[in-house]
Amino acid sequence: MSTADHGFVADCRVRAATDVLTHRWDPVVLAALGEGPERRVDLKDKIGGMQDKPRTESLARLVGWGLVERRRHRESPPRVVYALTTLGQSMHDGPLLALAAWAVDHGDELLRGEGETVADE
Amino acid sequence: MSTADHGFVADCRVRAATDVLTHRWDPVVLAALGEGPERRVDLKDKIGGMQDKPRTESLARLVGWGLVERRRHRESPPRVVYALTTLGQSMHDGPLLALAAWAVDHGDELLRGEGETVADE
Repeated sequence: MSTADHGFVADCRVRAATDVLTHRWDPVVLAALGEGPERRVDLKDKIGGMQDKPRTESLARLVGWGLVERRRHRESPPRVVYALTTLGQSMHDGPLLALAAWAVDHGDELLRGEGETVADE
Repeated sequence: MSTADHGFVADCRVRAATDVLTHRWDPVVLAALGEGPERRVDLKDKIGGMQDKPRTESLARLVGWGLVERRRHRESPPRVVYALTTLGQSMHDGPLLALAAWAVDHGDELLRGEGETVADE
């Protein structure tokens, strides 16, 4: 089984999933929401080094994809939180968790650019 | 287990793995090489819509990360192919395959922006 069997190269569904990950902050925001719904302001504290504008843009993209939803709780004052949708949760639990697990095992090699090479044939 | 347990939000190894995926073509090139080593020119045919410049840049980045290697076969004329390293193969077989499998199941919802929402609480 290879990624090609899943049409990675040409399948527009797969391209769409890849596109979600092309925005640097989006997987980080998805990961942060994987622990539970958060208010905007708390996301700021949770994610180091993320400014207001990229946070706003990232949330808007993720809501647009249907991966995140904005929930308005009817309290006084109203409380608004961002939460993973069922779709977002499944992306979190599947490919994002696989990526994180791989990174913990291999991220050091990646940071050093140390992929093992094979001798000339 | 959540991605946060893997330090997704702050761990630089995980950020590095995420960065690999922020370049639109890089996962596509990794997927194409998952079927076996390819000459530059054959990659062009294999990946629809990819121009020369992004292909050159993508291969250079992936070689820099240590995910892909350039192999020079001592033939006449010399034949040069690009191939996944051990590290690249493990990224292909782990997170990329997980992403492709998820996309096949959920990519249509993603394309329609149809993540199921939960009612206000």
